Amino acid sequence: MEIKVMRNILDRNQHKADEVRELLKQKNIIMINIISSPGSGKTTLLERTCEKLCPKIRIGVIEGDITTDRDAQRLRIFGIPIVVINTEGGCHLDSHSIFKVIPEFDLEKIDLLFVENVGNLICPSQFDLGENFKIALLSTPEGDDKPGKYPLLFREAKAVILNKIDLIPYLSFNYMKFESDLRKINPSVPIIQLSCTTKEGIDSWIKWLSNHIV
Amino acid sequence: MEIKVMRNILDRNQHKADEVRELLKQKNIIMINIISSPGSGKTTLLERTCEKLCPKIRIGVIEGDITTDRDAQRLRIFGIPIVVINTEGGCHLDSHSIFKVIPEFDLEKIDLLFVENVGNLICPSQFDLGENFKIALLSTPEGDDKPGKYPLLFREAKAVILNKIDLIPYLSFNYMKFESDLRKINPSVPIIQLSCTTKEGIDSWIKWLSNHIV
Repeated sequence: MEIKVMRNILDRNQHKADEVRELLKQKNIIMINIISSPGSGKTTLLERTCEKLCPKIRIGVIEGDITTDRDAQRLRIFGIPIVVINTEGGCHLDSHSIFKVIPEFDLEKIDLLFVENVGNLICPSQFDLGENFKIALLSTPEGDDKPGKYPLLFREAKAVILNKIDLIPYLSFNYMKFESDLRKINPSVPIIQLSCTTKEGIDSWIKWLSNHIV
Repeated sequence: MEIKVMRNILDRNQHKADEVRELLKQKNIIMINIISSPGSGKTTLLERTCEKLCPKIRIGVIEGDITTDRDAQRLRIFGIPIVVINTEGGCHLDSHSIFKVIPEFDLEKIDLLFVENVGNLICPSQFDLGENFKIALLSTPEGDDKPGKYPLLFREAKAVILNKIDLIPYLSFNYMKFESDLRKINPSVPIIQLSCTTKEGIDSWIKWLSNHIV
């Protein structure tokens, strides 16, 4: 019975995701769903991205958080439209919650809509939100063994960002192990190494992103 | 309808958790449920704990993982009984999965049963497994803002372990902010600062643990 319920939830999610996708396509908006563990650097990545692309690219952000609007507060300085979805304990966003907040945006004034999902390496990967693609974000302190242990996200991601590379000298993170682990799951996904703190590698991310939003 | 289903799941989980708790109590076994994000150091904490306590304290481990038995492999050198539960995509352990694997252990030969939950700061906190208490593990690279953003675990934890304190010099982690955030949610929970890498603070953890397993 549980499986049937889950299937119903996922089916309903898929239908609504298709609606979101169609709507955004009509408005020429690219939507990107960013997924990671808590504290991997999703908000900081958005800060670095806004610094580089605003206002040339008109960015909007949907912030998924269990509670609080702290991440949204950090992005307010860019003067971009931001809508917070508090899941009140929920471990992921779904397409219904996205569909419900889309009218809060003026879609004529957005080129690129980021969704910062709830910090969770598992559940968000199962829910299509209507995005053009998912980005998997992993930070080096989480360890080189994560792609093998949490395969779904890494299989579905259009690109994998490895953040906090400035910390590698202080960790036992083995890049070769990480890469070979990831390649077993997703042989061709681009890996973008960067540090949102030192800004090393941010240009590679912006270049990759720019090639995928036109 | 979804709410009703979730209520049923939690009710059934609670009944089975009570059964697990009663069974372990009869055998004088303390069960501890360790919860954290992916890569915060749950397995490494168990390694440091086994180094200090085995074989004086007879430890058993239930390893919750989505897939793979990598964490269990790391603990094999201690010669302790370990059972792996692969959730096959599931984002948390529940009491039914615990109940099912308990017969794999010789309960006459265990004093302390650790459950390493699936790496997830959200869902595992909702499921009582029949443990004596939960430990919340947070690592400094995840950021000082996590208690406020993921309150349930920090509210329920008997102790909060702050791991990877050796990395603080390379991070913008503000301990005062972390502590004041945590205190709003759980005013009296002990905070144990340590580094499983340098072993600083491990003795405080072992001392606290020893006081809570007799």
